[in-house]
Parts: sequence; C-alpha cells; structure tokens
Amino acid sequence: MHDPIPQRIRQSFDAQDMMRTLGARLLQAADGRSVIEAPIVPGARQQQGYAHAGLTFAIGDSAAGYAALSLMPEDHEVLTVEMKINLLAPARDGPLRAEGQVIRAGRRLSVVRSRVLEGETEIAILQGTMIPVPL
Amino acid sequence: MHDPIPQRIRQSFDAQDMMRTLGARLLQAADGRSVIEAPIVPGARQQQGYAHAGLTFAIGDSAAGYAALSLMPEDHEVLTVEMKINLLAPARDGPLRAEGQVIRAGRRLSVVRSRVLEGETEIAILQGTMIPVPL
Amino acid sequence: MHDPIPQRIRQSFDAQDMMRTLGARLLQAADGRSVIEAPIVPGARQQQGYAHAGLTFAIGDSAAGYAALSLMPEDHEVLTVEMKINLLAPARDGPLRAEGQVIRAGRRLSVVRSRVLEGETEIAILQGTMIPVPL
Amino acid sequence: MHDPIPQRIRQSFDAQDMMRTLGARLLQAADGRSVIEAPIVPGARQQQGYAHAGLTFAIGDSAAGYAALSLMPEDHEVLTVEMKINLLAPARDGPLRAEGQVIRAGRRLSVVRSRVLEGETEIAILQGTMIPVPL
Repeated sequence: MHDPIPQRIRQSFDAQDMMRTLGARLLQAADGRSVIEAPIVPGARQQQGYAHAGLTFAIGDSAAGYAALSLMPEDHEVLTVEMKINLLAPARDGPLRAEGQVIRAGRRLSVVRSRVLEGETEIAILQGTMIPVPL
Repeated sequence: MHDPIPQRIRQSFDAQDMMRTLGARLLQAADGRSVIEAPIVPGARQQQGYAHAGLTFAIGDSAAGYAALSLMPEDHEVLTVEMKINLLAPARDGPLRAEGQVIRAGRRLSVVRSRVLEGETEIAILQGTMIPVPL
Repeated sequence: MHDPIPQRIRQSFDAQDMMRTLGARLLQAADGRSVIEAPIVPGARQQQGYAHAGLTFAIGDSAAGYAALSLMPEDHEVLTVEMKINLLAPARDGPLRAEGQVIRAGRRLSVVRSRVLEGETEIAILQGTMIPVPL
Repeated sequence: MHDPIPQRIRQSFDAQDMMRTLGARLLQAADGRSVIEAPIVPGARQQQGYAHAGLTFAIGDSAAGYAALSLMPEDHEVLTVEMKINLLAPARDGPLRAEGQVIRAGRRLSVVRSRVLEGETEIAILQGTMIPVPL
C-alpha cells in the first residue's frame, strides 16, 4: 500500500516524543499539506476537562511544520519561528484533527497556517512562520 | 509556612492533567504575576531532542493564564482567547521557567505576556488575551 | 442599483478619515465578508518605495472589522482586540485589495481573517479578534 | 549637538513617506532601542474619532523596525516578517509615543517588541519578527 508520507518526514515525526505522549498520528504530509490526528488523552486536559490549549497548539503547530517540511530540500529540518493561535471552541471528546498548509514557501522562511477540528467543528486556527535548518 | 498561591488557583492548577503530564509546578500566582517551572521530560521533546514548542507554549500560556486569574473575581475561571509565541532559542537541558504577567486587566478581557527561560536564557516570549468565564 | 453595503456600515466607513487618507474604498460588506480596495498612494510608501506595512495592515484590519460588523446587531460598532499580520511579498504598483472574513462570530468576540492582494499575488495574511461595542 | 540617530537610519526614516503622512518623528534609534512620536492627525482617525489602529500599528511597527536596524550591519535594510498587536485602550488626544526594543538580535532574524503610549497610558503592545535585507 502506498504511504503518502515521505520516509524522512515519517522518521522525523516518529522521533518526536511529544507526539507519542499525546497519542498523535501523522496521517499525511506532502505537497505543502499535512494532517495529524490525536485523541484527547487524560493527560492532556485542562482544569475543566477540556483539551488543554497546549495539546491543541502542539498538534496545530506540528501539522504546520510538517506541511512546510514537505516542500523543503531533503537535508533540512524545520523549526517554528513564531506561531499564533486563536481558540474558537472548547473540545471535550476528540479526536482532534490538525490540518496544516503552506501559504508561501520561501528559501529563507515559510508562512503556514493550520486549523484544528473536533469532528466538523473548528476549535482553533493558527498562523505562523517556519524556518529551514540544515541537518 | 505561607503559600503565595491562593487556594482556588492551586486547585485549578492541580486539576490540569496536562501540567502533571509535563511535570510542571506552579511556584507563584498572585497580584497579576505567576511562575511555573517544568523539567524537559523525555516525553516532551521534539525530533532533535530539544524541548517541543508544545511544552514551551503550554507552560508559557498557563503562566499567563494564572497571572490573569489572580486578578479575577473568586467565582471565575479563565480561558485563552489567543496567544502568540516567538521562539528565541532551543532548550535541551531544562528546567524551564515560565513567568506570566498581566499587562492590562479588564472586565471583559485581560491582555497578558509571558516569557520562558532556561537558566538565564530567554527561549520564548508570548503575548495574548485571556477571557474570564463564570464558574 | 443595489448597494451591497448596509447604510450603517457605509456611514461607519465614510467616517474613517484614515481610509480617506489612504484612498481606500469599501466595495463589499455583508454576510461576514468584506472587500476594501486602495491604491498605493505616494504618502503610504516605506523607504524603498514599497507599500508601507502600515497601509497593508490598515486595510487588512479594516476589512476584517467590517466583515465582523456585518454580522453584529444594528446598534453596535466593532473594535480590534488584537491582530496579527504575516507579510508575504512586497507590493509596489497596487492597487491593493483586502478581503475580510469572519471565521467565528460570537456574542462576546468574533474571530476574523483577512488577506491582502496585489493583483493575483497574496502580499499579506491577517488573523485576529474583534469585539462588539454598543453605540 | 549630538544626534542620537545614525545617519543611515535617519535617511531611511526620512524616506518613508508614510511616516511623513502621519506626522511621525524619529526621536531615537541606537543600541537596539528606538522611539517614534506622532500626533493623531485628523487624517489618521477611525469612525469614532479615536486614533486608527493603522496609525498605532504603523508607528509601533516602525519603532520595532528601527530598533532592529540599529543593530544590523551598515549595508542592510530591515523588513517586517510578521507583527502582532494587542490594543489596550483607545487614544483620542495624542501625541502617541512608540518605543521599540530588540529582544533577540540574530543573523537571520531579529525578534522585537514595541509599545505605544499616549502620555502615561499604554495603548498597544506589539511583538514580531524582522529580517535583514542586503541593500
């Protein structure tokens, strides 16, 4: 079966302990787009039982990062320069789905967006900047 | 011994499973300021072994939130409306220290800032908006 | 001929001296969407002759604001709580076109986005929060 | 008399037509800090007579940019990558004073902050990223 995710991106994601802690899975990363899915594990909740903003941010930021990485040369990694998140609605049941997208790919910087959904409900939108880093 | 953290804030923090997952501790929360400390646990790293941006965001956002909550009426909680993070330097060893601060406390919204340090090195700055929510 | 812009929005826009200074025109504002067009007047350039980020921000922010206002009750105005802009490309010739859009309309806050184009080229994207203010 | 502003920065500022339109003056730009002052000219107001967010943004962004430029090599200009503004209070009388500051100067990017005041009142805070551009 065809894996829609290049091997180097798969390896990068699998090396992210934080994604494992959150139970997140990378479902797609190619052509400037990426999708990450995660349950709301008990250890990722805030004081009222909703998904912690840290969880929502982590998968939204990572989805944006892998979208950017999918357009970068082979021997590079990507780092977040800055990211802004607007939280739209609380999420309690999950799973969460983060969809990342490159808005403009540049040699020096890439501008990215992502959105995080619970089912059909958009719970957060993110907008930020990624920088390529030679390995 | 005097605990510099009001009981309702202590309870709110202790109910945040995400903070427990990250090993974070609330050291201070009063008068519009708060401090959270966290190690870089193995489960909070990114693919190169550095602290994941999700960890840095989570404690920076929470520090800002508890700073805001410390100025709100008793029967309220606080939610993040939006938050922007600029990442300044990677952190590998920890512990991380997040210092939150209210810039302007309002009835409808509070504007907050925080910074995250590893030792003396500032690794991130955050600027955002919190909203009070009646319990 | 049908004016696609409600009268109160037209009046609000016409009362914005800043929009007149910039030569900006409101082309549309209804149903959570709005469009503003502006030339790059000589007085709105930066040191290299490109459109000043202040111009790009001003029309992008206003487009987002009127998109939000179009979904608010009659006796309200709208204020920007916060706005984040990523600049994608310089613009020299103009005209600029700002397209605003409501992502989530709420009773207390609205989350908005806009993008600014020069011809077909996206030169900036904005993401922010608007608050209704009773008149 | 000593001018606390290097000549190349003075020239860059004077070439910004937008700053002239707004009546803005550069009072300081050295060592990673800068100050810009501007009246609230009639042509820079919004629909309720307050300073337009575009004015507040323009001087806050420019103050941050000149703070960054003051730490860059001679043959470079600076461009805004992204900027986020939180508006704290409306301003009606002016003058406005924008204070820019470099938080971290880097070879590839600089992280900056600024705040805009009317008298003693903070009316906006900004946080963003600047990129050096060879002339």
